[in-house]
Amino acid sequence: MLFFTQCFGAVLDLIHLRFQHYKAKRVFSAAGQLVCVVNPTHSLKYAPTRCAAAQAPAEQGLLPPCRRHEAVHDPQLVPCTCPLFSCPWEGHLEVVVSHLRQTHRVDILQGAEIVFLATDMHLPAPTDWIILHSCLGHQFLLVLRKQEKYEGHPQFFATMMLVGTPSQANNFTYRLELNRNQRRLKWEATPRSVLERVDSVLSDGDCLVLNTSLAQLFSDNGSLAIGIAITTSKAHSAEAEM
Amino acid sequence: MLFFTQCFGAVLDLIHLRFQHYKAKRVFSAAGQLVCVVNPTHSLKYAPTRCAAAQAPAEQGLLPPCRRHEAVHDPQLVPCTCPLFSCPWEGHLEVVVSHLRQTHRVDILQGAEIVFLATDMHLPAPTDWIILHSCLGHQFLLVLRKQEKYEGHPQFFATMMLVGTPSQANNFTYRLELNRNQRRLKWEATPRSVLERVDSVLSDGDCLVLNTSLAQLFSDNGSLAIGIAITTSKAHSAEAEM
Repeated sequence: MLFFTQCFGAVLDLIHLRFQHYKAKRVFSAAGQLVCVVNPTHSLKYAPTRCAAAQAPAEQGLLPPCRRHEAVHDPQLVPCTCPLFSCPWEGHLEVVVSHLRQTHRVDILQGAEIVFLATDMHLPAPTDWIILHSCLGHQFLLVLRKQEKYEGHPQFFATMMLVGTPSQANNFTYRLELNRNQRRLKWEATPRSVLERVDSVLSDGDCLVLNTSLAQLFSDNGSLAIGIAITTSKAHSAEAEM
Repeated sequence: MLFFTQCFGAVLDLIHLRFQHYKAKRVFSAAGQLVCVVNPTHSLKYAPTRCAAAQAPAEQGLLPPCRRHEAVHDPQLVPCTCPLFSCPWEGHLEVVVSHLRQTHRVDILQGAEIVFLATDMHLPAPTDWIILHSCLGHQFLLVLRKQEKYEGHPQFFATMMLVGTPSQANNFTYRLELNRNQRRLKWEATPRSVLERVDSVLSDGDCLVLNTSLAQLFSDNGSLAIGIAITTSKAHSAEAEM
C-alpha cells in the first residue's frame, strides 16, 4: 500500500513539474532554452538564521555594511550575499557558492542563456527570488526583489552579481529580458561584485526596475519569466574599474 | 551696423546649434542618426490656452476624457493630444498634426530612426518633452513626462502614440532605447492611438518608466538621449485589436 502511495505521489510530482515546465515555456515562448522555476523567499529576514558557520552575533538589519566588512583583516572575506537573510556568515569568495547552496538552498543553473521563472509574484513585499547561474567559468547571483520604497506601492528590482571581484565583474555584461503581451523590456549592464552590497545596488535603483503595473503586464498567471544572458565584455578592461 | 549685428547673431546661433548637435552625438554615440534637441514644456497646464479653434469652454484638468469625447457625434474627432495643456481644441485626425505644430509649436522629424535629446531633466515635475515623428507614411507623437506619482519622488514616463486609429496603430512597433555608462535599457511595444488618452496610458504605467536614479545614470549634463525606431509589425493584424 505504501509503495502505491509513493508511486502515486511521484506521478503527481512529475505532472506538476511537467505543468510548470510547460507554463514556463508558454510564458517566455523561448523553446529550447533552459527554464528554471524559482520560488519566492518571503520575509526571511524575520526567520531564524540557518547558517552553519554562525560565529558573529546575529544582526537585526540586512547584510552588514560592506565598509564594515572591509575593515576585517582579509578584504576577500564576504558577508552572506543572500538578501533578506540576517545571516552572520562570512567567508572567502571561493566558498560563497557552497554556502548559498548548502545553507540557503539556492539552486544553480548552467548555460549562457536561461529563463528565470519567478512564481507567486502576488506575495506581499518584501519578497525575494534568488538563483545562482554558472556561466563562462564563473558563478553569478540573480536577485529579484519585491520591495515597497513608497508605502503601498511595491516595485520589483532585478540585478545580477558576480561571485568574484569587481575587476572580474567588469569583464562581463548581463542582460535581463521580459517579453509578453506585445511588449519587450531589456536591461543590459555590467554585473556588480558580491563584494558590493546587493541591498545598496537595489536601493540605488541601478538595476532593472518594474512598477506593479508593468510586472502584471509581463506576468502570466502570477509568474514572471525573465530571460537571462551573460556575455564577456571586451570594452571593459580590469584597469577601467580602477 | 544692423547688418553686422544680425550676422553676429546668426553666427552665435550656428555655434549654439553646432554645440547642441555635438553634445547630442556625444551623449548617444550614434553617429549618423538624426538628433533632435527637445526643450521641456513645464507646467503648461497653468498657462493660458493658445488654441486657434477654442470654441468649447476651457477645462481646469488635463485632456477631456476619451469616453466623453466618444459621445460626440463624430468618433474620429480627437481632443488636443498635447499633454499638460488645458487645450479645449478638438478636431479630426487629419488636422491633429497641423494643430500640434501650429498652436503648440511641436517639432516634427522625418526618418525611421532618430535620437530624441530631452534637455533640462532637472526641472521640477510636472514637465513634458514632446515631438512629432513622421515615419512609414504616418505621424507619431512621442511624449516624455516627468511626474510625481509618489510625492517627492519624480519618475519619467515615455510613450509613443500614432496619429491614427487603434487598428492602424496595431500595425506598428516602436522602440525606445537608452544607452550610457555601460548600461542599456530598451522598451518595445505597439504604439497607442491618440484617440486614447495619453494621460491614462502614462498613469497606467504601460510605457517606459525610469526612476530618478536611472534617469541620472542615462543622462549627460542634464540631457537624456532616447533612441527611437519604428517598424511595421507583421504579427499584429488590424483584427487582433478588435
